[in-house]
Amino acid sequence: MTTQDARMPVSVQPVSTEKPVSAEPSVAAEKREPGWHKGYLTGTRPDIQVPVRQVHLTTGRDVTLYDTSGPYTDPNVTTDVRRGLAPLRENWIIGRGDTEEYSGRPVRPEDDGIKHTSPRGGLRNLDAVFPGRPRVPRRGRDGQAVTQLAYARRGDITPEMEYIAIRENVSPEVVREEIAAGRAVMPMNVNHPEIEPMIIGKRFLVKVNANIGNSAVTSSIEEEVDKMTWATKWGADTVMDLSTGRNIHTTREWVLRNSPVPIGTVPLYQALEKVDGKAEELTWEVYKDTVIEQAEQGVDYMTVHAGVLLRYVPLTARRKTGIVSRGGSIMAAWCLAHHKESFLYENFEELCDILASYDVTYSLGDGLRPGSIADANDEAQFAELRTLGELNTIAKRHNVQTMIEGPGHVPMHKIKENIDLQQEICEEAPFYTLGPLTTDVAPAYDHITSGIGAAMIAWWGTAMLCYVTPKEHLGLPNRDDVKTGVITYKIAAHAADLAKGHPGAQDWDDALSDARFEFRWEDQFNLAMDPDTARDFHDETLPADGAKTAHFCSMCGPKFCSMKISQDIRKEHGGDLLLDPEAGMRQKSAEFAASGNRVYLPLAD
Amino acid sequence: MTTQDARMPVSVQPVSTEKPVSAEPSVAAEKREPGWHKGYLTGTRPDIQVPVRQVHLTTGRDVTLYDTSGPYTDPNVTTDVRRGLAPLRENWIIGRGDTEEYSGRPVRPEDDGIKHTSPRGGLRNLDAVFPGRPRVPRRGRDGQAVTQLAYARRGDITPEMEYIAIRENVSPEVVREEIAAGRAVMPMNVNHPEIEPMIIGKRFLVKVNANIGNSAVTSSIEEEVDKMTWATKWGADTVMDLSTGRNIHTTREWVLRNSPVPIGTVPLYQALEKVDGKAEELTWEVYKDTVIEQAEQGVDYMTVHAGVLLRYVPLTARRKTGIVSRGGSIMAAWCLAHHKESFLYENFEELCDILASYDVTYSLGDGLRPGSIADANDEAQFAELRTLGELNTIAKRHNVQTMIEGPGHVPMHKIKENIDLQQEICEEAPFYTLGPLTTDVAPAYDHITSGIGAAMIAWWGTAMLCYVTPKEHLGLPNRDDVKTGVITYKIAAHAADLAKGHPGAQDWDDALSDARFEFRWEDQFNLAMDPDTARDFHDETLPADGAKTAHFCSMCGPKFCSMKISQDIRKEHGGDLLLDPEAGMRQKSAEFAASGNRVYLPLAD
Repeated sequence: MTTQDARMPVSVQPVSTEKPVSAEPSVAAEKREPGWHKGYLTGTRPDIQVPVRQVHLTTGRDVTLYDTSGPYTDPNVTTDVRRGLAPLRENWIIGRGDTEEYSGRPVRPEDDGIKHTSPRGGLRNLDAVFPGRPRVPRRGRDGQAVTQLAYARRGDITPEMEYIAIRENVSPEVVREEIAAGRAVMPMNVNHPEIEPMIIGKRFLVKVNANIGNSAVTSSIEEEVDKMTWATKWGADTVMDLSTGRNIHTTREWVLRNSPVPIGTVPLYQALEKVDGKAEELTWEVYKDTVIEQAEQGVDYMTVHAGVLLRYVPLTARRKTGIVSRGGSIMAAWCLAHHKESFLYENFEELCDILASYDVTYSLGDGLRPGSIADANDEAQFAELRTLGELNTIAKRHNVQTMIEGPGHVPMHKIKENIDLQQEICEEAPFYTLGPLTTDVAPAYDHITSGIGAAMIAWWGTAMLCYVTPKEHLGLPNRDDVKTGVITYKIAAHAADLAKGHPGAQDWDDALSDARFEFRWEDQFNLAMDPDTARDFHDETLPADGAKTAHFCSMCGPKFCSMKISQDIRKEHGGDLLLDPEAGMRQKSAEFAASGNRVYLPLAD
Repeated sequence: MTTQDARMPVSVQPVSTEKPVSAEPSVAAEKREPGWHKGYLTGTRPDIQVPVRQVHLTTGRDVTLYDTSGPYTDPNVTTDVRRGLAPLRENWIIGRGDTEEYSGRPVRPEDDGIKHTSPRGGLRNLDAVFPGRPRVPRRGRDGQAVTQLAYARRGDITPEMEYIAIRENVSPEVVREEIAAGRAVMPMNVNHPEIEPMIIGKRFLVKVNANIGNSAVTSSIEEEVDKMTWATKWGADTVMDLSTGRNIHTTREWVLRNSPVPIGTVPLYQALEKVDGKAEELTWEVYKDTVIEQAEQGVDYMTVHAGVLLRYVPLTARRKTGIVSRGGSIMAAWCLAHHKESFLYENFEELCDILASYDVTYSLGDGLRPGSIADANDEAQFAELRTLGELNTIAKRHNVQTMIEGPGHVPMHKIKENIDLQQEICEEAPFYTLGPLTTDVAPAYDHITSGIGAAMIAWWGTAMLCYVTPKEHLGLPNRDDVKTGVITYKIAAHAADLAKGHPGAQDWDDALSDARFEFRWEDQFNLAMDPDTARDFHDETLPADGAKTAHFCSMCGPKFCSMKISQDIRKEHGGDLLLDPEAGMRQKSAEFAASGNRVYLPLAD
């Protein structure tokens, strides 16, 4: 875990090779990898270096793909998990001159779930965790909003926006417009300078979030950091740290300092730990303290279940599966215990000001999302959505970037209503959905039940998909589950990019299909979303090197390979059928007597 | 393989417990399995015994599910792969009095791909393969159509139709009408009496086909029979034997005699073997001989690529991946080599008469289906579809049951056009699609890329889905791949049943979600599509028996289990919030002071 395996391929979304604002990619590694290398696209200033994955085809051509894997796949960069990544945004943040360093909130034992009392509260010196780099938190001067939304609204194109324009192959002005309109968000806390800027919005490539996090039952800090780097290697665009057990503060510090992607949390989980798991003992003060603690660490977006109102809880009473969101059930329990309106709803404007001063993005949680097919699209769910729409408007007034979370378990015929309503009610704020799962009957395969719904809802406008692993409903995902979940969701996201006609999305499919038709097996593997598994599956029955150039595989064997026969037809048959498909057969028979001509056009490369 | 593992759970589509025509299910096994048993629903005559899977819940209730696993999961039945299954339809077929036994075509060495010559041709005595039961083939007297379509059109409700009515929970008249209209097919050759009748049509549960078959490179006879029983255990509704290597005739005999589900083939593959793999040497005579050989064995449906016309081949010239159907590429090569129209097209009416006399169902193959995103919905594909519509009309005139095969690789936004066009052009004949794959970029995960498309196209009307395994494009699937492919497609099919609002489909989801909400872990496992894997995944982190009744799993741990909190809310909070959700808070606070009442309705069972 301390040094990256540079040979681990990562595959993600395509970027067209036509770059509107950047120069040619530079070759990062002198030692090129056999199938691909990490490259960078340079912006208008030399410190804008956008990572890409350059896949080398045996034809000599390169295919450029979107890359989320961070410095871990760059052989020129030495990473050390105890020192963290380089703070590449630091100069941009400081350069804007609108933030200040300050002493920050002392770290207390209870932040890590440790119960013994300590008079001053300072349990752990962060120097011990990150010896080379004592961190001092930063926030907006005089409480001002230092958000990308505020900058976009006043017409500024930040280096982060330019970075994203290069990454997404659009103009910087498009990025600024989408952010200013609230149709996209760029989660990036001023205290997370290590981040490689990315954007979430329906106008851009569909993104995928991977959840990690220990629970009280299992898992360790090291495992969580490793899951994060593992998830981003396979293409996770953001990671949520949903830890709930011990060492929650320290785990988060490790994850943040080593993460090239935005990190999201649900502050309510840690707040609940601070009150010994008793929902009714939660207070606005404990919650606010937790939000500040996490904002100072650099959390980029926070799920806030402020839409679970007291009057909505009874709407869940006749449900098949009640309330299945952890945050939703905690807030419902609090509201009922006190018979008061949610402290998150009541203090929402103050929370906005806190988030704005760090540029933490809201992810307004759907605490009443359906947990079964029977509960989909019910009154509880849509009542909360209307409240999220109201909160979205308030957040925007405070210049806080905002996205909206969505379900859940929804049968296919009810999916579109979800995205359409959300887009209408929330003024096109980015939708961030969990699946949805299209049936309840396949535990152990819920990456698939939900991958189906995820692809569809992303096609219809969802901006980011929260992955579901095979362990959903059954246990905590391990490393293999994380990989399976990420790849399933990258498939859903890319299928949606294709269906939306995203510019350049099909270039990747075309490159792979060309390689397939021409039996360039190595190119197929290197272009695959998971090159390792594709190669392993092929080699299971045909391991010899010669099979890598063979014009067949073991699926059909040499005589029955349609691609081989199709190739042979192109090679063997002459004439002008192509140019005059309707021509009569008699006319053609003479030409076919003299075969061996080259009729068909050469394959496009 | 010789005796079944009766404990292997099979899970498939739901049947409502409201049975229109049948009595209560009988308990087949004295020794009940812990989680479920094989039951039978009896029709109006005692020899109509429709298998079901009865899942026993810990609440005392049973849930009845559709069952494809055949006698192999019935502990009261002893099966022997060398003797085959009991011919349960035999009396029904004989009873109709419209068929006759006849000597049949001698089996020849080349039927098994054996090249040495033999003057009389009789290589193998089937007695040696199935010692207890010498088979004599059967066909319609005087060449008459003995098809379920012919019976349905003249108003007959056959025992097979009644069997299906029970299985699908509809009236027998609905079955007859759908068959008569050509909107559904019941593939069941008179020479495959071992079959448990099933139906393919959009009015019924969506079905799944699993392909098995050796290729020249790998696989053995025993493996293929085992793959068949394995696939049906996990829910395959039909199986296609796509063998192309040696022992093709004998493999097929074994598969048919042991198969409780319809078996499909592509006769062209075996015909090509008979001419040493040289497409240009194929003739109508060799093909016809092969069709009769297979029809006499009992093949229930045959893929015929009669829509690949000479004039369509040039339409594929500019394609990214040419012709990717094996049958399509073979026929294209033949047409070009001879510069003549396809012998399948030219002799289609004669072929209809042959199929009608055995009740073999047409599966009109889409030889020009797209093999890449770039080629989807192109002129080649749709030109062939129009010809398939023409052939469909001819087949119906000859009383041959007919379904139409569909693509292939299609991005999500182009899927609906496929099913809509097919339904229009082919007069609502059942559509039978391969996926479609919604992106090309994920070899090793094409069960998922295609499961997404399969769920969508089935929702929109596809009647049967041909599965895709993780090995697609890479190699021959093994046992694990077959299971993964079948389960992925059962998920897609069931998601579509839900989205279509199929009566009773949601009962299964509701039963599982109830079990989930009430922490009845064993019920969740037993109701799961794959109980073994669900249980294994749960036990990976919480193996102790006590965890099977715990009110949490390792995913969230005890404190953060939303279902537990949600349950606690229902238990702890009293009042009439449920009855008057809009009531003010003041009014409620008094009631909540005295908590402990039971507010919420008990969970529906």
